[in-house]
Amino acid sequence: MASWGERLAGVRGVLLDISGVLYDGSKDGGVPIPGSVEAVARLKRSQLKVRFCTNDSQNSRGDLVGLLRRHGFDISEGEVTAPAPAASLILKERGLRPHLLIQDGVRSEFDQIDTSNPNCVVIADAGESFSYQNMNEAFRVLMDLESPVLISLGKGRYYKETSGLMLDVGAYMKALEYACGIEAEVVGKPSPEYFQSALKELGVEAHEAIMIGDDIVGDVGGAQRCGMRALQVRTGKFRPSDERHPDVKADGYVDNLAEAVDLLLQHADK
Amino acid sequence: MASWGERLAGVRGVLLDISGVLYDGSKDGGVPIPGSVEAVARLKRSQLKVRFCTNDSQNSRGDLVGLLRRHGFDISEGEVTAPAPAASLILKERGLRPHLLIQDGVRSEFDQIDTSNPNCVVIADAGESFSYQNMNEAFRVLMDLESPVLISLGKGRYYKETSGLMLDVGAYMKALEYACGIEAEVVGKPSPEYFQSALKELGVEAHEAIMIGDDIVGDVGGAQRCGMRALQVRTGKFRPSDERHPDVKADGYVDNLAEAVDLLLQHADK
Repeated sequence: MASWGERLAGVRGVLLDISGVLYDGSKDGGVPIPGSVEAVARLKRSQLKVRFCTNDSQNSRGDLVGLLRRHGFDISEGEVTAPAPAASLILKERGLRPHLLIQDGVRSEFDQIDTSNPNCVVIADAGESFSYQNMNEAFRVLMDLESPVLISLGKGRYYKETSGLMLDVGAYMKALEYACGIEAEVVGKPSPEYFQSALKELGVEAHEAIMIGDDIVGDVGGAQRCGMRALQVRTGKFRPSDERHPDVKADGYVDNLAEAVDLLLQHADK
Repeated sequence: MASWGERLAGVRGVLLDISGVLYDGSKDGGVPIPGSVEAVARLKRSQLKVRFCTNDSQNSRGDLVGLLRRHGFDISEGEVTAPAPAASLILKERGLRPHLLIQDGVRSEFDQIDTSNPNCVVIADAGESFSYQNMNEAFRVLMDLESPVLISLGKGRYYKETSGLMLDVGAYMKALEYACGIEAEVVGKPSPEYFQSALKELGVEAHEAIMIGDDIVGDVGGAQRCGMRALQVRTGKFRPSDERHPDVKADGYVDNLAEAVDLLLQHADK
């Protein structure tokens, strides 16, 4: 494999995943991953541009940023690309009135959206709200539409919490897709449109940007398909088998964000 | 389209789906579909062989038959092919110890099966038991296995109850398949092995048998792929768009089982 110097040459901007990279455990507040608070601070003091790109659809951006700031992270709402506000924009543009299968924590992102007489379904990482009853309700809304529109905030397979691995929205998206015989529109990683909107806000070209995430498919594979480079951290949902993934090979594997930032500050933009 | 006489020529055996054909509403007892009690009785008085082939995985065969008999149907346990006893046999043959994501009503079918230290997951139409917590438990069992084995009792998309359309086991099977990156083994319609075991018990060859069901894919498509003929009834989960299905065309569409039996008694085995 090429040296780190070659692999990181010309990087001018960094997209950071949040859960599993900055902190572990997305509910109950979670705990910062050792070294990540300092790593973000060092990145932001460097000449590299930094933006956060999350698939968190449990919390509003305001709540998420508040939580991270309480843990000591230097982060503000305007620096975060998140699926719920991105979806909210799409709903407005297309005049869609969603039935929302989401958690209360993220509902405020849809405050400005008309949800009467729904003509689409939006699902997020709804956690305990993925009850049989709520799934049936969303299913029936879709089946009553002539051309069912299902918008899924990300399509993650699972994530890790202190209590163990948890099914993510992608699993429930697949359930509804199969039951209705439709394909969902994904707003979130690894959707190319989503990465491109984050890149635009970051202000660098794809070939000058690197994604740092814990998800070999959603973060690494998705970013690479957009022409970015990507590192996988061995924290969060990382599993050793990821380094032998049949389809996706990261530009590098690092123990954690601190190591990634060490390497970037040493080799990027040289 | 060919005449009914041509389409039904040489039929010697009939496989009858139960829910949506004999009665509507699979929970709370349901109600017989008008004419179906008499239609079954007429079929059984004819020279045609008859067997019931269900994907019901909510109830034990004993409970299902008891319910149908109380509604006046002439049916006994030995005449029913059902996924749970079929799966139970497979588990025994292969020495598999399942984690069961099923309803209590069908648990007795697995009484003889060792469920300690599970090395596979069996999912059935679990209804309300498809909670987020139970789905996560099944998911974690699979993720802890080196070669995850998921056995799904059918892969139906949805069914109809008095309260509306309900997601069936297939949707939840897809969720686990996607989350684990695996493919489930289906025990139930439209699995060819399952149809073949029902045909063997019916005692006729595929080309002499006809399936009568309300599910265009699970009943009609599945039976046709095994070389059988198949009629779709316009009861149960039937939807008008089924008659324009892109991939599956039934050998005939009838209003209900009574009409199917009228046609069979008039034209079959001629």
